[in-house]
Amino acid sequence: MISVEEAKHIILQNTVDFGIEEIPFIQSVGRVLKEDIVADRDFPPFNRVAMDGIAINYSYFKNGQRSFTIEGIQPAGSPQLSMQNSGNCTEVMTGAVLPNNCDTVIRYEDVTIENGIATITVDNINDGQNIHEKGKDKQQGDLLISKNTIVSPAEIGVIATVGKSIIKVAKQPKVMIVSTGDELVDVNETPLDHQIRRSNVYTLVSLLGSLNIPSETAHITDNKAILKEKIDNYLQEYDLLLFSGAVSKGKFDFLPEVLDELGVEKLFHKVTQRPGKPFWMGRTDALNMNSSSKNKTLVFAFPGNPVSTFVNCVAYFYSWYYKSIGGQKNKQSAILTEDVNFKPNLTYFLQVKLENKEGQLFATPVKGNGSGDLVSLTEADGFIELPKTENIEFKKGSVYPLIRYK
Amino acid sequence: MISVEEAKHIILQNTVDFGIEEIPFIQSVGRVLKEDIVADRDFPPFNRVAMDGIAINYSYFKNGQRSFTIEGIQPAGSPQLSMQNSGNCTEVMTGAVLPNNCDTVIRYEDVTIENGIATITVDNINDGQNIHEKGKDKQQGDLLISKNTIVSPAEIGVIATVGKSIIKVAKQPKVMIVSTGDELVDVNETPLDHQIRRSNVYTLVSLLGSLNIPSETAHITDNKAILKEKIDNYLQEYDLLLFSGAVSKGKFDFLPEVLDELGVEKLFHKVTQRPGKPFWMGRTDALNMNSSSKNKTLVFAFPGNPVSTFVNCVAYFYSWYYKSIGGQKNKQSAILTEDVNFKPNLTYFLQVKLENKEGQLFATPVKGNGSGDLVSLTEADGFIELPKTENIEFKKGSVYPLIRYK
Repeated sequence: MISVEEAKHIILQNTVDFGIEEIPFIQSVGRVLKEDIVADRDFPPFNRVAMDGIAINYSYFKNGQRSFTIEGIQPAGSPQLSMQNSGNCTEVMTGAVLPNNCDTVIRYEDVTIENGIATITVDNINDGQNIHEKGKDKQQGDLLISKNTIVSPAEIGVIATVGKSIIKVAKQPKVMIVSTGDELVDVNETPLDHQIRRSNVYTLVSLLGSLNIPSETAHITDNKAILKEKIDNYLQEYDLLLFSGAVSKGKFDFLPEVLDELGVEKLFHKVTQRPGKPFWMGRTDALNMNSSSKNKTLVFAFPGNPVSTFVNCVAYFYSWYYKSIGGQKNKQSAILTEDVNFKPNLTYFLQVKLENKEGQLFATPVKGNGSGDLVSLTEADGFIELPKTENIEFKKGSVYPLIRYK
Repeated sequence: MISVEEAKHIILQNTVDFGIEEIPFIQSVGRVLKEDIVADRDFPPFNRVAMDGIAINYSYFKNGQRSFTIEGIQPAGSPQLSMQNSGNCTEVMTGAVLPNNCDTVIRYEDVTIENGIATITVDNINDGQNIHEKGKDKQQGDLLISKNTIVSPAEIGVIATVGKSIIKVAKQPKVMIVSTGDELVDVNETPLDHQIRRSNVYTLVSLLGSLNIPSETAHITDNKAILKEKIDNYLQEYDLLLFSGAVSKGKFDFLPEVLDELGVEKLFHKVTQRPGKPFWMGRTDALNMNSSSKNKTLVFAFPGNPVSTFVNCVAYFYSWYYKSIGGQKNKQSAILTEDVNFKPNLTYFLQVKLENKEGQLFATPVKGNGSGDLVSLTEADGFIELPKTENIEFKKGSVYPLIRYK
């Protein structure tokens, strides 16, 4: 039995680099960028008109001129015009190149136009106004988005602008999610009195789906020989195996034994926490001669109770995954809204409902009926992590680390 | 020109019901549920063993008995056993049905087993312990998840458990996203000096993708006749048209005029805000004889500057969409970390970087170079909404509504 801190430490020591793949940029939201995105030219690439109106040479305005003969129109998307007479003006559109011999743009709202002559109707005109200057945001070669950024819609626009139609992102691991337990039938079946439907594997599929990780699922009966044979095959084929169930003290909890026999090195079994204590983790190693696997495969074997599987996935697997692919998620915390008493000398992952009020994040405990109560997961938004301590009382108003899943 | 409040009001008055579709439950994460999920039987469906160990009849323990002959094993997934002699015990596994004539479970840790006899080694045994009682979490017919809930991995487990392999969710609108502007070339092309690449449509595609809304894109040249013809077709075919550009005061900003000619009723044009002021919104109506559309089509025409398009999509389109499909997102707010001066009498959507510190959400302004600076979007996590006011100073420590996009 190890502590939550030790478990986290071991997990983060066992990250795996799954490599890099190239994908169309538009499919990259949620993925981790594996190249720097650099300005292919200045941002903006030319002195860019920022308002619809007229462009003039400011010195004429300064000298008292208010009426300007319109020499032409500079639309967005046309090659740069040159104003022939610097005392004239050119009509300019937002997004257009500022014409040569102009340095200031006056918006249509501040101009009247009659017979080809624009007359400025306001006095507060500044030299160089309404121009988004070439290179003002970024210069050619500047770093725009760093490698290891998690791509969001904000990054998509920048990636499009620099023309990276194909980009490098962290490759996803190949994942098999396995349920065990003879009490389980599938979702579209009708369970007998002593049976229930499989749900944890689907929860895990969707928790991984939230990280854009595709996965496959399988169910193995509580038979040691069959379990061993199937897992042996999965170890050859997958980067990651996730299990739900068969890691506790039951007569049919063969998993730790089977994994050991297959040469999977145990990293730990059991963590001083509630829920989710019987969590088992291990790995194969190409260097380990006992290993039946040619690859490095990581095994996360979660306890079979739904809340246990869920909390271990979001508390450990998520951190492990982000560190593995190089992405980063900021830590969060929340303020407890009521006193909580918790006697066992264990770290307590407490289900909470969150509320943002006046810029503060409040966490109210959700009363569940233990780790078997999967409906309670839908009533909460996350877990707060109450540290393992002799002190059994956690006070209203105190702040604890938050693992948010909604 | 209308206020931000008026714009929000009009938008929320013009929601559209896109109907319901049935999809495999495992694909429903992020979608809005359109049916109640009800317990098909009690949760748990039987008195469920919650620990691996032995099951006894408590009265014998109470009367001082400590050693119990093991009568059999009750594994998870097997029909319920009946203990023949109430003074015996049965080995039971987590997830199993509690055998008849038993009422208390003692975990293996608190028992020694020798020659088929289990001896309890601790004194603090409670009547009925370690049993997850039938119907304790929910009873058959209880509401588990309400209609209009946004499905997350937590709901997936519950939906699986009650056997809803196919579920009803809000149908997504059919969306066309159109860019205009002759300065634009596509992502895989090399722009000339006066050109830039299309980026806003891809930003919008991914912003809608974050809501699981698929969309198509098109580019239309700044030519009124072509614009009119193409939009006429799109109005027949799509539920929603999103535009970026051509709504300002430019000579080639034909969009409001063309939409008017096609019988699209203008709901508003221009909002007293920065950035994103020239936002245009309209709708066709099957009842309107001038309309060229047979359907009700909503048109969101965002200004072409990247930050303007972005903020209008997350501030208005997102709220409109959630109200349309019946889902709900909680309001958020954040604490300003520095004084902000903003002179124009407009609502200011200020780009901010967020930090959660001690349960508080702090918003630090990101210094961008105006609405053309799309890189600044990647440096921020959201916008705070500073109200339109005569007071130009917004003080450090004050709290404002937050629109978060990262």
